[in-house]
Amino acid sequence: MTDRSVAVAELVSSLPAGVVATTPEALEKYRQDWAKDPDAGMPCACVRAESPDHVQVAVRWAASHGIPVVPRGAGSGLSGGASAVEGGLVISLERMTAIEIDPAARCAVVEPGTFNADVKKAAAEHGLWYPPDPSSFEICSIGGNVATNAGGLCCVKYGVTTDYVLGLDVVLADGRLITLGGKRIKDVAGLSLLKLFVGSEGTLGIVTRATLRLIPAQLAPSTLVATFDSVRAAADAVVAMGRVVRASMVELMDKPTVNQVEDFAPMGLDRDRALLIVQSDAPEGAREQEMAIIEMACRDAGSVDVFVTHDAAEGAQFVQARRLAFPAAEAAGSLLLEDVGVPVPLLPDLVARVEQIGVERGVDVVCVAHAGDGNTHPIVMYDAADPDSTQRARAAFDDILTAAIELGGTITGEHGVGRLKRDALPAMLGPDIMELNQRVKDALDPQGILNPGSVLAARP
Amino acid sequence: MTDRSVAVAELVSSLPAGVVATTPEALEKYRQDWAKDPDAGMPCACVRAESPDHVQVAVRWAASHGIPVVPRGAGSGLSGGASAVEGGLVISLERMTAIEIDPAARCAVVEPGTFNADVKKAAAEHGLWYPPDPSSFEICSIGGNVATNAGGLCCVKYGVTTDYVLGLDVVLADGRLITLGGKRIKDVAGLSLLKLFVGSEGTLGIVTRATLRLIPAQLAPSTLVATFDSVRAAADAVVAMGRVVRASMVELMDKPTVNQVEDFAPMGLDRDRALLIVQSDAPEGAREQEMAIIEMACRDAGSVDVFVTHDAAEGAQFVQARRLAFPAAEAAGSLLLEDVGVPVPLLPDLVARVEQIGVERGVDVVCVAHAGDGNTHPIVMYDAADPDSTQRARAAFDDILTAAIELGGTITGEHGVGRLKRDALPAMLGPDIMELNQRVKDALDPQGILNPGSVLAARP
Repeated sequence: MTDRSVAVAELVSSLPAGVVATTPEALEKYRQDWAKDPDAGMPCACVRAESPDHVQVAVRWAASHGIPVVPRGAGSGLSGGASAVEGGLVISLERMTAIEIDPAARCAVVEPGTFNADVKKAAAEHGLWYPPDPSSFEICSIGGNVATNAGGLCCVKYGVTTDYVLGLDVVLADGRLITLGGKRIKDVAGLSLLKLFVGSEGTLGIVTRATLRLIPAQLAPSTLVATFDSVRAAADAVVAMGRVVRASMVELMDKPTVNQVEDFAPMGLDRDRALLIVQSDAPEGAREQEMAIIEMACRDAGSVDVFVTHDAAEGAQFVQARRLAFPAAEAAGSLLLEDVGVPVPLLPDLVARVEQIGVERGVDVVCVAHAGDGNTHPIVMYDAADPDSTQRARAAFDDILTAAIELGGTITGEHGVGRLKRDALPAMLGPDIMELNQRVKDALDPQGILNPGSVLAARP
Repeated sequence: MTDRSVAVAELVSSLPAGVVATTPEALEKYRQDWAKDPDAGMPCACVRAESPDHVQVAVRWAASHGIPVVPRGAGSGLSGGASAVEGGLVISLERMTAIEIDPAARCAVVEPGTFNADVKKAAAEHGLWYPPDPSSFEICSIGGNVATNAGGLCCVKYGVTTDYVLGLDVVLADGRLITLGGKRIKDVAGLSLLKLFVGSEGTLGIVTRATLRLIPAQLAPSTLVATFDSVRAAADAVVAMGRVVRASMVELMDKPTVNQVEDFAPMGLDRDRALLIVQSDAPEGAREQEMAIIEMACRDAGSVDVFVTHDAAEGAQFVQARRLAFPAAEAAGSLLLEDVGVPVPLLPDLVARVEQIGVERGVDVVCVAHAGDGNTHPIVMYDAADPDSTQRARAAFDDILTAAIELGGTITGEHGVGRLKRDALPAMLGPDIMELNQRVKDALDPQGILNPGSVLAARP
């Protein structure tokens, strides 16, 4: 037996039967996330933790052997943050799915493997709401949401994951379990370590429990759908309405996206135009005015057609079309998914530049956006069997990152850096902030065993 | 000349005339903040920075001589976070007060010496609003607000400072200037250093510019004022309404506070009862229902009188009475100001326990609270000329901290740890989290020159 297999045997014997997967067939499922990183390694084992204690045992084992640890939620990450490291350990939190709602404290206390949708459902039973809603909310886990500080469609009015995290239990790099925050709404005692762990993509610790803030249930929204001859015009409308109202959803689909979605699941969308979907959940009385302002902003920006419905189910169909953008693109071929963002006033420039990059590089780029936040998801389509197409797609991907940085934006608004964008991070942050990131990483994970190669380069 | 005075002369000559104060008379004003820390030292100099460059020069000078640096905004801090260190350098940001509003990006870009109230005013000119509103908003600076992650009265619905900080320029411990974040709404590129600096009380860096998120102007609120025979009953009403509605303000004054405020500025408040002030800024249509729910919660909890006004100016008078609580207490004698918080459902237990502690220790404790957040400000009154009274007050102060910790709460909800509560922090956080705090501090300020003794103990 090799040293590593002796060590794995030790791990297997220190945890209950069925917790540690070690066969290649079982491990295959834990190698990649949705980013399908071709460089993902084969882990030596996967601990499917059923309790914080299992996570602690696993991390202590890894620390004692100097073995890299990749934590994993539902595996729906889009930037390779959960790509396995060759010979490393994967800790999957998929089995930790307990949910407890405390309606008086207006909190949910949930384990990290819980799906986002299940938190929403449990909260709704008490007339409460957990707002953050990644497009993948039905299949993504809270642990992953916390790890990436996930956003979604309602962020434009209701904020992102970090705005709802009141407490975290975290297993540190040496296996200690700490509890940060709790059910208290305001707390400034000590450094904001809680907020530091949110968005740390498993590089500083492994979340084993989250206390999430809930708010009263959202009112059924009204929906406005507007079509535009150009994606820039649609973006102009977004900027204009954003100066005056807080819509509860402002989503943009460019013409190529509309066509992909129509190919995938025909809904009768106008294939010749870009589409803006805007919702208002303002209370009756204020809603009419808010919808009127949104409509005026669309018309002033040159909308071709405007359709308004106060029927929530009808509105949800358009939102569903938007949510299908990514599956539709996946069905259409190989793709590189972007997540770039800019200050809202620069959204028209960004979407126009993305369109231009597609032309320049000779690749199809479809673009959907959480437009109200200036956060866009250009999707670069390519033919994986054609090296030239692949190379052009990669060039377009890089061009889009560069364009976002040049516009004062970010290379990732909500998906995280992971492994996919690690090499682009220095260009965005610069050497000083990269060094600070590394210093904080080193302070909390001196051995460098937590998710090495994600966000920051692994130790040589 | 001593080594230190040679060094100070060097500092003076490296900055424009009038920037560096060195005389004891001029320095006296920079020794303390509102916590009036009796242990505050006499600094060797105060740099009244007029630009980020001045801050960098000053920090580089301090770093090269190993001299402690205490950053200072408006000096309105309540926990001794800006107490000068004997022989150290104070860097005052009071002269850096530029404000720039970007209505399209819905941001304010402000220098740290800007008063909170001035940001609100500048935003209002564009129909926009900067929500965080410490009671001291007219005289506290944004730099201090960021340093303490300040709260206020509207937090119960609109969140605290960190929820509005999109970007920070920070001078690091070695004098480098970095820019974190910016006008982009969503950004998850790299660790959440931005959020780490918020609330770090000047121990990790010195903020020289903040980009703050603005939202559309608040509607004029309706106000409900309810009186209760006991502070516990008032707190019960808070818990009940919090399960159903998001009031825009939920403030509590116990009977002794009402009496102190009446003594200070007679307004005809009912001296025999605890007072709850609740506001709703819900749009017309939803407001009536929200106010009805609030009123029902008060009546169910046993309110004696309920008064409702939809006149914003009349409502503001009650809010003003609440804002006078601290000045009224100051006028009534020496005081120790608390800032403890608990999960909202435990608010009734906390306020009852605070009352009991006053009785047990034989001291007057008046209590106001941002009740909707579970954040209370018990104020322990004492006679500074009487050592026994002083000792009993300190004992009551410590009892209240212990009570908050025992209830799963925090020793500080919004004022910060500073020097006043530094020794209580380990009891709340425990050794593991204290160690993490120290590791992060050491990573970002290896020399330990930034605000030593605030939050964490100074290096020996």
